[in-house]
Amino acid sequence: MIETSASITVPFYDVDSMEIAWHGNYAKYLEIARCELLDKIGYNYLQMRESGYIWPIIDMRIRYIKSTRFGQKVCVNAKITEWENRLKIDYLITDKETGERLTKAHTIQVAVTLSTGEMCFVSPTVLTDKLSHLEEKG
Amino acid sequence: MIETSASITVPFYDVDSMEIAWHGNYAKYLEIARCELLDKIGYNYLQMRESGYIWPIIDMRIRYIKSTRFGQKVCVNAKITEWENRLKIDYLITDKETGERLTKAHTIQVAVTLSTGEMCFVSPTVLTDKLSHLEEKG
Amino acid sequence: MIETSASITVPFYDVDSMEIAWHGNYAKYLEIARCELLDKIGYNYLQMRESGYIWPIIDMRIRYIKSTRFGQKVCVNAKITEWENRLKIDYLITDKETGERLTKAHTIQVAVTLSTGEMCFVSPTVLTDKLSHLEEKG
Amino acid sequence: MIETSASITVPFYDVDSMEIAWHGNYAKYLEIARCELLDKIGYNYLQMRESGYIWPIIDMRIRYIKSTRFGQKVCVNAKITEWENRLKIDYLITDKETGERLTKAHTIQVAVTLSTGEMCFVSPTVLTDKLSHLEEKG
Repeated sequence: MIETSASITVPFYDVDSMEIAWHGNYAKYLEIARCELLDKIGYNYLQMRESGYIWPIIDMRIRYIKSTRFGQKVCVNAKITEWENRLKIDYLITDKETGERLTKAHTIQVAVTLSTGEMCFVSPTVLTDKLSHLEEKG
Repeated sequence: MIETSASITVPFYDVDSMEIAWHGNYAKYLEIARCELLDKIGYNYLQMRESGYIWPIIDMRIRYIKSTRFGQKVCVNAKITEWENRLKIDYLITDKETGERLTKAHTIQVAVTLSTGEMCFVSPTVLTDKLSHLEEKG
Repeated sequence: MIETSASITVPFYDVDSMEIAWHGNYAKYLEIARCELLDKIGYNYLQMRESGYIWPIIDMRIRYIKSTRFGQKVCVNAKITEWENRLKIDYLITDKETGERLTKAHTIQVAVTLSTGEMCFVSPTVLTDKLSHLEEKG
Repeated sequence: MIETSASITVPFYDVDSMEIAWHGNYAKYLEIARCELLDKIGYNYLQMRESGYIWPIIDMRIRYIKSTRFGQKVCVNAKITEWENRLKIDYLITDKETGERLTKAHTIQVAVTLSTGEMCFVSPTVLTDKLSHLEEKG
């Protein structure tokens, strides 16, 4: 399984007047975990661009089970669940102390060839080779 | 139909190093349209709290069809598509000049009683009365 | 006088748990007014880059006189007060209804030649020509 | 000396189309260090409110010496330099690897009595007692 877990402390500036993290800020928490995951496989934003592709998000869904407060420590687990035609990452945010499930989410990215701007309907081998290799080892 | 359309110019600070609005910023665009819609029915954040409820977002999904650039003018159409048990709003973001479809999204909110913290499985009458009334007129 | 005034409604997502706009969000309000001002003189971010320069902010100061609430309508007045060696813009944020002074600020930008990365100690003529021309007219 | 140093990795979502951290995001970096510092003296946001005061920022100045890129690791040093009548914190952001100075800043906060909304011209003893005690030890 290709996955990672990022630790985040909810900062004061993310909390709204209901004293909970504003729902839109979770896109940042997902990105922190996603970047750690992509670093782990050696294919983060800079490597993507060097390989001739960008990978825009085309779909993001977040289900909020329980809210979070200023200073709360959470874990953002991210794992790759699809990669052959598009890169799908599933997320689970839990409370660091209690393990309680707080948020479930996913993002879907597709490769776009930088030189032409065209979307790829099959993921480029620069990604799939890395992931097949990791799967075999795993 | 209970709907509204908000005008937004993509600001410089929302644009990332791929020179497009960062995907997480769309939660703000949806909220601007949602607040205009809730103002229209007289039940925005302040009225919600006065009525004894908060309405946290429990589900947000955004599908990105085409990216947006710094300075681009877009329309965010928001319409209420469910309200009896929960408040579901559907969004369509289009280019202001060409009308091209850029983003589709939805958010789902549920009422939570402020005094007890309990989630309501049926929307409180303070919302449904306003909406039934508007539907009859519309 | 080369100045402009931008209208802003404090959005829900900018408000913190003290129910006032979080102080760091004012950098966005200044930028909205600054971009309107730079559009007015025909030298906004895109024209800057086309002219071979970027203009990073090297100094920002904000003095908060009175806080702002969700939904409050404010005016952000921006005016150019120095431009020969660097671009200094002074800002005054006031309540739209009462005219009460809420915030004073300034930003200072300097030209950096894109091709060399070198800072310019005199503002390039592409800016000073535009401003001298406007001053003569004004 | 009452000071602290926070480690921050510049996230993708903070970087603008010039591929550097957008200047307004530094207010967040300062706050992360400030919160760590206030935690250290046992007087962070929650303790402030419990003690009957809020401490809004009334002045923030940031001088940008060198820009930062996506993924760059920086240290944000924060130290208290005034506290008798107001709480002044000075910040220095440096590159974690090279120690190069990147940004200098300060923030000034004043106590406001929660019950009356009145600004205090002398810092309340709940803060000054904590700081005098730490100074004696230090």
